[in-house]
Amino acid sequence: MNYKMMGRFIAQILAIEAAFMIPALLISAFGGEKAAAMGFVYSIMIIVAVAALLWLFCRGAKKGFYAKEGLTCTGISWLVMSLLGCLPFVISGEIPNYIDALFEIVSGFTTTGASIVPAVEELSKGVLYWRSFSHWVGGMGVLVFLLAVIPVSEQKGGFTMHLLRAESPGPNVGKLVPRMKQTAMILYVIYILLTVLNVIFLLLGKMPVFDAVCTAFGTAGTGGFGVKNDSIAGYSPYIQNVTTIFMLLFGINFSCYYLLLMRQLRSVFKDEELRMYLGIVVVSIVLIVINLRGVYETLGETIRHAAFQVATIITTTGYATTDFDLWPGFSKAILLCLMVVGASAGSTGGGMKCGRVLLLLKILRRNIRQVLYPNRVMVVRNNDDVVDEKVLQNTNGYLAAYVFITIFSFIIISIDGFSIETNISAVLACFNNIGPGFDAVGPVMNYASYSWLSKLVLIFDMLAGRLEIFPILVLFSGSTWRNK
Amino acid sequence: MNYKMMGRFIAQILAIEAAFMIPALLISAFGGEKAAAMGFVYSIMIIVAVAALLWLFCRGAKKGFYAKEGLTCTGISWLVMSLLGCLPFVISGEIPNYIDALFEIVSGFTTTGASIVPAVEELSKGVLYWRSFSHWVGGMGVLVFLLAVIPVSEQKGGFTMHLLRAESPGPNVGKLVPRMKQTAMILYVIYILLTVLNVIFLLLGKMPVFDAVCTAFGTAGTGGFGVKNDSIAGYSPYIQNVTTIFMLLFGINFSCYYLLLMRQLRSVFKDEELRMYLGIVVVSIVLIVINLRGVYETLGETIRHAAFQVATIITTTGYATTDFDLWPGFSKAILLCLMVVGASAGSTGGGMKCGRVLLLLKILRRNIRQVLYPNRVMVVRNNDDVVDEKVLQNTNGYLAAYVFITIFSFIIISIDGFSIETNISAVLACFNNIGPGFDAVGPVMNYASYSWLSKLVLIFDMLAGRLEIFPILVLFSGSTWRNK
Repeated sequence: MNYKMMGRFIAQILAIEAAFMIPALLISAFGGEKAAAMGFVYSIMIIVAVAALLWLFCRGAKKGFYAKEGLTCTGISWLVMSLLGCLPFVISGEIPNYIDALFEIVSGFTTTGASIVPAVEELSKGVLYWRSFSHWVGGMGVLVFLLAVIPVSEQKGGFTMHLLRAESPGPNVGKLVPRMKQTAMILYVIYILLTVLNVIFLLLGKMPVFDAVCTAFGTAGTGGFGVKNDSIAGYSPYIQNVTTIFMLLFGINFSCYYLLLMRQLRSVFKDEELRMYLGIVVVSIVLIVINLRGVYETLGETIRHAAFQVATIITTTGYATTDFDLWPGFSKAILLCLMVVGASAGSTGGGMKCGRVLLLLKILRRNIRQVLYPNRVMVVRNNDDVVDEKVLQNTNGYLAAYVFITIFSFIIISIDGFSIETNISAVLACFNNIGPGFDAVGPVMNYASYSWLSKLVLIFDMLAGRLEIFPILVLFSGSTWRNK
Repeated sequence: MNYKMMGRFIAQILAIEAAFMIPALLISAFGGEKAAAMGFVYSIMIIVAVAALLWLFCRGAKKGFYAKEGLTCTGISWLVMSLLGCLPFVISGEIPNYIDALFEIVSGFTTTGASIVPAVEELSKGVLYWRSFSHWVGGMGVLVFLLAVIPVSEQKGGFTMHLLRAESPGPNVGKLVPRMKQTAMILYVIYILLTVLNVIFLLLGKMPVFDAVCTAFGTAGTGGFGVKNDSIAGYSPYIQNVTTIFMLLFGINFSCYYLLLMRQLRSVFKDEELRMYLGIVVVSIVLIVINLRGVYETLGETIRHAAFQVATIITTTGYATTDFDLWPGFSKAILLCLMVVGASAGSTGGGMKCGRVLLLLKILRRNIRQVLYPNRVMVVRNNDDVVDEKVLQNTNGYLAAYVFITIFSFIIISIDGFSIETNISAVLACFNNIGPGFDAVGPVMNYASYSWLSKLVLIFDMLAGRLEIFPILVLFSGSTWRNK
């Protein structure tokens, strides 16, 4: 393992994290929130100190950075970023318990949006801003950001590809352009443009600027931390509809936007994952609207709530406009399944990803044919291209890991004695980076009542979910740390 | 497709089914149960007529019987056997609704034990016997029985291997001896010996003969239909303990017993699946006993109930000695996971099977290593042998199919509006051939309140679970029916 190179890399990540805290510090300072401002000042100092020490300690790193280093480095970066990123919550005294603070920031970075704060309106503006901004950073990924800003000369030895692959969601991460740095830049430019557009549309609906920016961060990262106790329910139908549309937009593979900019309309419309994603959204909304007849006063209101909740769950955002825990069983069953499906690969959303579900269905179809005709050689295609067997193997491995982690987490958090519905939905809501689940972790509840052990398990689930399992799992594997 | 050969085969299966009904007919006739006796008489006549017509119609079948025919034939056999096997329930008027009767007999043949009968003590003895005997037949498989009795000269063209493979549980079905017919015979001899032993031990506990035979059938097939409304709860602790032990014995791979008879003790003790199975049983009992402290009066009673419920769920039998739906959440969570794990491959139990779970874990471990070292070639071993990649591919396909069928079934039965806990456990309890689930389908409840649509879905689940998915799935695949 090339520890020195990894150390240098993590030092850079921490420097960026410290820089990202500055706006929150300014908001606290100018808003007269003294405790919060001091929290950010001390946190920045600690993070900069750690980064500087790490940088000095890891001078003279050799080249040589392989898949192993890429995965491990991604996992460790996110862990360190979280362990230090929650310091403002603790130091300011707004979330004094360290495990709770860690839960909150991991929930932020992983764009989960599960909270242990009972009433967010009591938090200071600086802390609220940092919570929401953590969604924005985590959505596209801080490593991708780093790749976009560090000079090309630093990006050698397969270094960048391994990192991008480890942090970006989806079964088959592709480069948009030959150069990694440019790919990362294009992704961030699209991301920033869409976020700005979202803010503008929210401001047109007369939303306060602070609310609009924070809500847009939560939407863009498909996170779900709001600045109001009732999430988005208190805002106007216009603002709710704008949020529905932008959540759905951020759940689309960003390479589709790049293709749109390149005017390759045909490739976009033919994209199988995009079709599946939009198909699931439309079918789910229709089924829920039918199931909800009589629950709301008008059909328009029913459609608005159904569309919002479908969008918030499939994109794994986690905002809410209504307490969907009170919906009838069939609608809840659909939402529970959307939790697992998730958004598109290459978007900021979580879950299994439509593209991976599609691949699994195709693998299954091939398997049925293969048992019928054991001696034929069959391939799996995606958008007319043959999918590499390694990708298929990885997708199968992903499913197995997904199932085992779900079961394992479910058993451990069951010790706390909540209902089966609560525990299953808590695990799925954290692992798929959604936020609210059902029953005791429903949209009007929070995760505060779980024990510290359960919170640690859910923290693991959130990180594993955001990084697509393997960068976190390898940290626990002997093969990673043995030098062969 | 070799339809004629399939037809002849199914005719033979039906002839066996008719013959198997004769003991039930005799019990009814001598017990003075007129309606039930007539039910069996008419049913036997109908089945024999169908079998005879099919046999005549399919004369002159050509050779040529491949994987495709084997799978399809197994699926259709079970379907036809169920469609006709429920006739006694309907004709006798004891379960007048055809869908309900079909649910009951599928539950019997697949050794699920999920019932729509609210009070089984009101059923006639003949019907009770047929219900329990269907477990015994379905446990080892009626196709395997047929292979054991038809002459070797009929067993050509890869015919037998494909059938045995399709009907026997487990990722990797092996022959015990080179000849298929002998393998089938050995399996049935062990099966009959263990069943007789079980009856003897129950009789020693002063259980009435009829109860002992029926209970042993349910235990041997890991089915779970009882002859009392309170399942096994009303019997003595001795009888409960005997049942616990025999359930666990029937959950072990039968090839272990063959090896024991061959005095290959070392291979048995080294068998990885057996170790895992026993390990899970012991750990689960210990955890549940700890979790249940204070629920029962003495430690002995706690251990007895914990052991019984663990045995009944992991072997997917479904008997009960206590209402485990009232147990604390952690114990219920363990039981829910045991439902999925299931018994050993090559046993009469259902579920994913320990051997398959073990393979999935090994595949996952290889996958983690593979992402760390993408260029190394790695194999998966089981009991020191390298596992064929085709078996691994099939195991992955099995997991994917398992997850999709679970989700799909869950959504459809949610239309009926029961709780998430009820619906998830109903699907898992039927798909894994257990029987009772939690909440509205808990051990003291039944499946009667589901709609006919949900019952059909659960019937599909039970068949798919018993035949390990593919023999049923291929019936829905276009490739099966197209002649290429």
